[in-house]
Amino acid sequence: MDYQKIIERIAEDVSPLLDKGEVASYIPALAGVSPSKFGIAVATVRGECFTTGDASECFSIQSLSKVFTLAMVMDRIGDALWERVGREASGNPFNSLVQLEYEHGRPRNPFINAGALVVTDCIILENHDPMRDLRGFVRTCAGNNTIGYDESVALSEKETGHRNAALAHFLKSYGNLYNDPGRVLDVYYHQCSLSMSCKDLARAFLFLANGGTDPVNGNIVCGLRQAKRINALMQTCGLYDEGGEFAFRVGLPGKSGVGGGIVAVMPGELSIAVWSPGLNTAGNSLAGFKALELFTTYTSKSIF
Amino acid sequence: MDYQKIIERIAEDVSPLLDKGEVASYIPALAGVSPSKFGIAVATVRGECFTTGDASECFSIQSLSKVFTLAMVMDRIGDALWERVGREASGNPFNSLVQLEYEHGRPRNPFINAGALVVTDCIILENHDPMRDLRGFVRTCAGNNTIGYDESVALSEKETGHRNAALAHFLKSYGNLYNDPGRVLDVYYHQCSLSMSCKDLARAFLFLANGGTDPVNGNIVCGLRQAKRINALMQTCGLYDEGGEFAFRVGLPGKSGVGGGIVAVMPGELSIAVWSPGLNTAGNSLAGFKALELFTTYTSKSIF
Amino acid sequence: MDYQKIIERIAEDVSPLLDKGEVASYIPALAGVSPSKFGIAVATVRGECFTTGDASECFSIQSLSKVFTLAMVMDRIGDALWERVGREASGNPFNSLVQLEYEHGRPRNPFINAGALVVTDCIILENHDPMRDLRGFVRTCAGNNTIGYDESVALSEKETGHRNAALAHFLKSYGNLYNDPGRVLDVYYHQCSLSMSCKDLARAFLFLANGGTDPVNGNIVCGLRQAKRINALMQTCGLYDEGGEFAFRVGLPGKSGVGGGIVAVMPGELSIAVWSPGLNTAGNSLAGFKALELFTTYTSKSIF
Amino acid sequence: MDYQKIIERIAEDVSPLLDKGEVASYIPALAGVSPSKFGIAVATVRGECFTTGDASECFSIQSLSKVFTLAMVMDRIGDALWERVGREASGNPFNSLVQLEYEHGRPRNPFINAGALVVTDCIILENHDPMRDLRGFVRTCAGNNTIGYDESVALSEKETGHRNAALAHFLKSYGNLYNDPGRVLDVYYHQCSLSMSCKDLARAFLFLANGGTDPVNGNIVCGLRQAKRINALMQTCGLYDEGGEFAFRVGLPGKSGVGGGIVAVMPGELSIAVWSPGLNTAGNSLAGFKALELFTTYTSKSIF
Repeated sequence: MDYQKIIERIAEDVSPLLDKGEVASYIPALAGVSPSKFGIAVATVRGECFTTGDASECFSIQSLSKVFTLAMVMDRIGDALWERVGREASGNPFNSLVQLEYEHGRPRNPFINAGALVVTDCIILENHDPMRDLRGFVRTCAGNNTIGYDESVALSEKETGHRNAALAHFLKSYGNLYNDPGRVLDVYYHQCSLSMSCKDLARAFLFLANGGTDPVNGNIVCGLRQAKRINALMQTCGLYDEGGEFAFRVGLPGKSGVGGGIVAVMPGELSIAVWSPGLNTAGNSLAGFKALELFTTYTSKSIF
Repeated sequence: MDYQKIIERIAEDVSPLLDKGEVASYIPALAGVSPSKFGIAVATVRGECFTTGDASECFSIQSLSKVFTLAMVMDRIGDALWERVGREASGNPFNSLVQLEYEHGRPRNPFINAGALVVTDCIILENHDPMRDLRGFVRTCAGNNTIGYDESVALSEKETGHRNAALAHFLKSYGNLYNDPGRVLDVYYHQCSLSMSCKDLARAFLFLANGGTDPVNGNIVCGLRQAKRINALMQTCGLYDEGGEFAFRVGLPGKSGVGGGIVAVMPGELSIAVWSPGLNTAGNSLAGFKALELFTTYTSKSIF
Repeated sequence: MDYQKIIERIAEDVSPLLDKGEVASYIPALAGVSPSKFGIAVATVRGECFTTGDASECFSIQSLSKVFTLAMVMDRIGDALWERVGREASGNPFNSLVQLEYEHGRPRNPFINAGALVVTDCIILENHDPMRDLRGFVRTCAGNNTIGYDESVALSEKETGHRNAALAHFLKSYGNLYNDPGRVLDVYYHQCSLSMSCKDLARAFLFLANGGTDPVNGNIVCGLRQAKRINALMQTCGLYDEGGEFAFRVGLPGKSGVGGGIVAVMPGELSIAVWSPGLNTAGNSLAGFKALELFTTYTSKSIF
Repeated sequence: MDYQKIIERIAEDVSPLLDKGEVASYIPALAGVSPSKFGIAVATVRGECFTTGDASECFSIQSLSKVFTLAMVMDRIGDALWERVGREASGNPFNSLVQLEYEHGRPRNPFINAGALVVTDCIILENHDPMRDLRGFVRTCAGNNTIGYDESVALSEKETGHRNAALAHFLKSYGNLYNDPGRVLDVYYHQCSLSMSCKDLARAFLFLANGGTDPVNGNIVCGLRQAKRINALMQTCGLYDEGGEFAFRVGLPGKSGVGGGIVAVMPGELSIAVWSPGLNTAGNSLAGFKALELFTTYTSKSIF
């Protein structure tokens, strides 16, 4: 299949949508990104890589980081994680305290903010230098040693992230955060600030398309069972309150971030990363969502 | 792959679980079923059928009927349905009025009871004799002209189903039910009372494993796109509040009913129906859930 | 104190507000009332009665009827009622199913619709001919044998009251309704349809200003303790989601109805009924609320 | 009326209840208090004071402090406060984030923790040295210059108060906190740590029984209208989720704290403070609640 041709056609198809979404404006560093940016990168398990548009430009990965921290933690502590976090779709906006109170402090899944904070708490417990180790993990997955945190983004989020601070203190009040809330938030804001390109991301998610093993360098990132489970979690909980919509229209496990990135995985074949900063009302990249829908239409790929 | 051997091994593996669940007791007709019943049927797109245990014994399909009505309606009115029903997991018990109020009368998906009532409302709008037409549809899918409603079950549910009556009136108060609530409930209780065996069900769901076309008789039940979308909906919303758990442990699109049946689909390959009346606390067949988990483990089948 | 002068001054003060509210439009019988109607009646424990404006014109008392049914039931079954209904303000719109689900089918108080349905269920259990007995009770309290049900209003409400039907079935599903939901709704819609004037209402509530005994004819309507408790309930739960606002601005126990009536009680002294069909966004009479605020300002009466 | 005799009789009546409640244990300073402590103090507008039991022993006033801060703020900024806080009963446990999210960051009333934090935020905005000024205000009301903060209690609450921290950050995320959350929490924990006796409290609340003016020294603490309104707020929102129950059984405006204190006001006559550290399941003093019920029974005092 000529992926290069397909992604170029998609780039053309979605170009009228680029000014339709709203760029996330809650922190200056994100608000300053041009809404006309658009990139796609496809990485196959055979080691090929196809890109178009701004696929090599770095952006703030934000919630995409939750997949990396989850993979690290699942590999380290296994099923013990599920005592502290659930595996069900949330049925509510991604940072709702209502849900958390209703569930007595156990977040419904590791991809809502509350659940991701618990995962980050585990990262801190399990690593001597969590920020360095996390960055190292991501660099290895992406095969790019220049990936780093954007301190200005991390600082901005810290100064304005009162809702995340509320979540962290709330989790702490339920005894579901072992470290100091301020410490957990610091690592969390840093992981969200990781700056990566579509190319980096498609490459870094490839182990999930290959049963946990990086097909390029042969590294075992996590076991086959864990890889399948992360895909299952992305399928059910990866797109905030549009998980069903994404399954319905795209039909692949995926994860989005408010920086405008979405990454999806076709098990056994490929991973694909798209980036367009304009968001729809659910907080997912408007053109990116459409691009992935077109990708599965044009290629007839779908897990269903 | 020797499916016969595999399902027989599974039947043996799960036998200690048969008395662990709770048989649904809210209506006498269901409460009277022996908890030791257990059956599996696998139907492949190549036309093979494998069965073990009580796979030929009929039971009340209950919520499994929601897949049949959805397929009928999606084929008839297409995307117009989504103006009245959403496509997101509910994140709440399956018959919650809270969710419905929060969403102003638009059920989150067609598999929670409220959404299924809206689908049934559409069935009534679109068919001259909805009960006969629905039965005919199911008989054709299953290739079995003896399938029928169990009037005693339907009557029992009508007499005790005050919560469903509340849902129907609540939908009506939001203008999201066009027919009289009593009429909709009558058809709904009948569809739930359909009496089928694992063998019937595996056969009847086969079109969803084959892109909408019945691989045995060549009937086009629905289009490829619709089939994929029904699978996506089953994946995200098919197991009440255990959709994430099912994706995590089984990794196939599936649908369950309080009669103890669960049907799952491996796109391109097969459909599988299990039956065990004992339910777990989430209302899904306890042994049936485990049987499907073992099936994907032993066969290494999973969409992820 | 010259009550006549005071209520005339109030009538003048609030006249600019008469066209500011919205007349309840959900049933034709209510929608047809002229928004310029306005009446006040004051009845004192010494037997005086003062009126102004349309104080002798009958209107639909709607939720004001909940005080009459509560008084009947408290006198008959006493504290047994509180096993089925709570005594706390609801903190939610008056017919919310969310609250009811959260509280497992026990309505928070007898003045929200769900709680009033339970009270009506008790009325049916305790009376051979509940509708005749209720009408008789109200006639005696008001000293007016011409008071009756407005069948057209009752019928209209039955045909459109899907939300109340949902509440009734929901209560039934929790086992907190002993009679058939349809039967309870029928009596409930009739009690809401009672047609009374401000003069009738001020007179009929007088027993609550006099420790349970009608000061005019000496009838003991209920005990002193019950009268105080009904006043306490009106104080905390009588104005839907504006109970606090009413306490804050008016400072008297009171009860409102969507027909535009509000009745308030000054214990030991008087009861006052106002009527103006235009409602504020919380469903309480806009001009009526203001009139009562002015009454306590001009008379310096307040329980606080 | 012989108040001395009455309160002594009450002390005897409730003595069997003293070991029935649960002493608040979330901070060591509170947990260490003996459950057998019990005191009553009555202060009349004529300047009399009656006490029994441990009425002179200081305890942690906790939420009773919310009345003092509210009085200070209402006197200073008047109705501007109501743009930031509501006046309705909450219908939910006192520190629920659910309610706050549902109401978009505007707490329902000034006596739930979220509302009290907003009031404290105002105190900080309006006073150069908020902690000294607040202490001065309370000392003047109580006529006792030895009243002070218990730093060990304040520190304990700071270290364990993750839920209050969550509330503060949540309010900040809605823009309804002007100062730094940490600063607001610091003042808040100090106000809760104020150490006072029943005698101090009865005396300090006397202005609310006397239209805003201290009847002993003639100080105008707040205007008549404000005093009535504070009483109305105590009536509807003063006892967490038992406001209705308190109105029903006691029939006076009142305010409780988890330290085991409850203060109630009989407008025009007296204020009464009771203390017993054992709490009921709603977080109100078990014996204190009963003592106040007996007081209104024995004296036939009630606003209803």
